[in-house]
Amino acid sequence: MKVAVLRLGHRISRDKRISTHVALVARALGAYKILYSGEKDSGMEESVNNVVRQWGGKFRISYQKSWRHFLKTRKGRIVHLTVYGMPVQDMVNKIKREKKDILVIVGGEKVPWEIYELADYNISVTSQPHSEIAALSIFLDRFFGGQELKKTFPGGSIVVVPQEKGKKIVER
Amino acid sequence: MKVAVLRLGHRISRDKRISTHVALVARALGAYKILYSGEKDSGMEESVNNVVRQWGGKFRISYQKSWRHFLKTRKGRIVHLTVYGMPVQDMVNKIKREKKDILVIVGGEKVPWEIYELADYNISVTSQPHSEIAALSIFLDRFFGGQELKKTFPGGSIVVVPQEKGKKIVER
Repeated sequence: MKVAVLRLGHRISRDKRISTHVALVARALGAYKILYSGEKDSGMEESVNNVVRQWGGKFRISYQKSWRHFLKTRKGRIVHLTVYGMPVQDMVNKIKREKKDILVIVGGEKVPWEIYELADYNISVTSQPHSEIAALSIFLDRFFGGQELKKTFPGGSIVVVPQEKGKKIVER
Repeated sequence: MKVAVLRLGHRISRDKRISTHVALVARALGAYKILYSGEKDSGMEESVNNVVRQWGGKFRISYQKSWRHFLKTRKGRIVHLTVYGMPVQDMVNKIKREKKDILVIVGGEKVPWEIYELADYNISVTSQPHSEIAALSIFLDRFFGGQELKKTFPGGSIVVVPQEKGKKIVER
């Protein structure tokens, strides 16, 4: 079951860091790809591609001008993360049992009504306001059942070796 | 076991949104308090306090000018989240078994060496670069074992009622 992430409504001036975090979390926690709509941002794409180059793996970022067309022609299941949705802890096993590829949508400031309709699942991580980065993290961790934390990223030039104190980086 | 969060090195111009997300995630996922060092930011404090007022609970935010003094005089355990630390999945049960209050430290751009030394645990959520917001989320979710997702927040004026499609907000 492959997971892609779609970040809606990116605005360069306001969202650069948040959207970059969304992309890096998608990569680190087992998604194979991030798409984003809104404003095209070559700087953000380059940041993400630089991480892939240095740290390995095959993660990709791509701009999606028309999310509407993309969502209507796509196969697999759509999971929309929203504070208004059903609790992740009640729904994640049902989503896993479908054994389908999924697209996880994380919204920007204003999510169009259509997204709620097009989504197979509207899912919340608590019904409190917090962060799309946090919602994505917890969804992916629960969807992959923790296995994603052990994922390796072949082909990069940098590997961190976990330490109790201090920093150990190996260059390949 | 109470959990507080300390965000190091806040810079108003660059970190406002990221630090606000850190604070809101701390609140939503069961911490009782966030402290932050770096630049004092009344705007951020107000944003967080507004969420508490509207959405309930007793979460607090406070500025900590000297993290060094604060850490040295504090009781409980210090958990520092860093890409260089030991894997969260291997360490979280050990931390829970101590049954101590904890302070979770999330860094900014450059974390002083002393923090690695002062921390009882340096913990990583994957050894890949991603987001302090994601690391905090996954640490809290695993530390509280998912119970934090059911937390209620008494006293606010807004409650979201989870829906399969659409938005339902009840005002109290």
